[in-house]
Amino acid sequence: MATQPAATGCSLEPALFGLDARLATVVRAIAGAVASVADTLRTASVAEIGTSNALGDKQLVADVAADRCVFDALQECGAVELASSEEQPADVEMGGQGYSVAFDPLDGSSIIGANWAVGSIFGVWPGRGFVGRAAREQVAAAYAVYGPKTVLVVARPAAGGGSCTEGAAGSADGSGSGEATEQQRAERRMVVQEFVLLPTGGWQLSRPDIRIPPSKKVFAPANLRAQADNAAYRDLVLHWMSERYTLRYSGGLVPDLHHILAKGGGVFCNPTSASASAKLRCLYETFPLALLTEAAGGASHDGGGSVLDQTLASHDQRGALVIGSTEEVAKCLPAMRAS
Amino acid sequence: MATQPAATGCSLEPALFGLDARLATVVRAIAGAVASVADTLRTASVAEIGTSNALGDKQLVADVAADRCVFDALQECGAVELASSEEQPADVEMGGQGYSVAFDPLDGSSIIGANWAVGSIFGVWPGRGFVGRAAREQVAAAYAVYGPKTVLVVARPAAGGGSCTEGAAGSADGSGSGEATEQQRAERRMVVQEFVLLPTGGWQLSRPDIRIPPSKKVFAPANLRAQADNAAYRDLVLHWMSERYTLRYSGGLVPDLHHILAKGGGVFCNPTSASASAKLRCLYETFPLALLTEAAGGASHDGGGSVLDQTLASHDQRGALVIGSTEEVAKCLPAMRAS
Repeated sequence: MATQPAATGCSLEPALFGLDARLATVVRAIAGAVASVADTLRTASVAEIGTSNALGDKQLVADVAADRCVFDALQECGAVELASSEEQPADVEMGGQGYSVAFDPLDGSSIIGANWAVGSIFGVWPGRGFVGRAAREQVAAAYAVYGPKTVLVVARPAAGGGSCTEGAAGSADGSGSGEATEQQRAERRMVVQEFVLLPTGGWQLSRPDIRIPPSKKVFAPANLRAQADNAAYRDLVLHWMSERYTLRYSGGLVPDLHHILAKGGGVFCNPTSASASAKLRCLYETFPLALLTEAAGGASHDGGGSVLDQTLASHDQRGALVIGSTEEVAKCLPAMRAS
Repeated sequence: MATQPAATGCSLEPALFGLDARLATVVRAIAGAVASVADTLRTASVAEIGTSNALGDKQLVADVAADRCVFDALQECGAVELASSEEQPADVEMGGQGYSVAFDPLDGSSIIGANWAVGSIFGVWPGRGFVGRAAREQVAAAYAVYGPKTVLVVARPAAGGGSCTEGAAGSADGSGSGEATEQQRAERRMVVQEFVLLPTGGWQLSRPDIRIPPSKKVFAPANLRAQADNAAYRDLVLHWMSERYTLRYSGGLVPDLHHILAKGGGVFCNPTSASASAKLRCLYETFPLALLTEAAGGASHDGGGSVLDQTLASHDQRGALVIGSTEEVAKCLPAMRAS
């Protein structure tokens, strides 16, 4: 009979092994923020607050409360210079030194009213600032899933020295430099781990090394309305149906991606069309989740190449996204290129 | 600015108003069981236990733990004669008097590993036993959604005297007797309410009177593989796509239905086909959820008529199901009849 996962320390230490002290501090701060957000969501109203955030979304009481939890944790930790929240998409001074953190405090506003699992997203950049930098410069990324449990997934350098995932996975169409030496690849290797928040406040390592298999017949067709005027997307949906893929689509980006990491593969596909434009934010959503996915051996693509090859032009930059098992991502490229 | 929902008592009392004492005791026991299951899920392993239950499903450690929580609560309350769990589909003596309760302690085994919201389902029958009785004999029903919050939704007689929902809603094709008098209708009227579990252990009334609007362009296409050999279902999916319906499909029956109740309508459609047979259990799943849905003004249908018109032939009886907004359910009947 299976039992509880082994209590491997019951702390966050496996996520910090080998990291420089300041980066470890940032990861601890993120974990603390996630625990606070989880507490807040147990009672926070999901009513609309009556205002919109700077990106034009309706804000919920829960959005604002979650935002405050994260800013507080980042400010207190002393290792964050700048932070930027999807709720306040500007650079905010955090008073510390070492890293900059971009985050979406509460992803899934459209489904939290139905009490479906929602998430938070974090991208960690070395030094100061975001605009003008390449996604591949992120040194770590994390997301949380608030569901029956509170789960934290962290991607970070395996040996503490890396700053990108190049060579760890690569984009679906084989683009990207293959020139890194074996030593460089080793230095850049990342590890992706899952932790569960315990009622005591500690963290238990639940998945020590998440790897996304290259194929699995599970699909999450985001922005489905785009198929009305994106014929390649329509063909793709019909292909999934005729091939009897399993449908899993909550409409929450984080839980949809977590399904792929936790259940052994699949694909989340969010193409666009003339009448259904890109909504996902690069800084707060696609960049960190692309880092996590490629670090776990999966692929990301925006129709032009790996999402990690993009450079951030502005806080509000939007993008198309397909993410997941490498072979499943490759099958989605015609729909993405028609975007 | 919106604030927390008004603290209407911060207890379960609104769910008990006007009920006979034993039925109130059963509802309290269900709420207690749900709180225990929520606690259990925070740490319970979602590993497979290595055995199957009597219906042939793989069991998880979490399934077994949740099952124990519910049996314990029903046995302790003293108002339950027989109970039957999807995990142990037989009649089990509970030692009390007044009601019988059928339940699915943990619905959503396939998605709990991804930490998506999952649920429990409860059907309450007056007196003793289940087999040979009509679904409409259920006097109350409830489900729980374990997500960022723990939510309990209860359907029960508004005036305490009812034992069915006839006249409150009706099936989508207009079948069913229209002969009840106004007084009978009033006596049979049911109310559907949502409660949120607070960290203190109390319950807060969050939605005092849930009503499902007759139409909303949101769809949950369950058993999608059936469209490969159910042409009417395939046509229905293409209709939803061309009409730009919003897709929300978690693959968990309870969260998928809760989306409809909490977000103001939509449809959950689970047809069958020669190669994709019915999986949903009548006693533990479709009967209680049909009662809840029709009590909230929505419709249920199994291809032949309202699910509430069925009589239970055996604990393991399976059925097709479409459930949700009346007009959306009506559009699904060709696919259901082709099942």
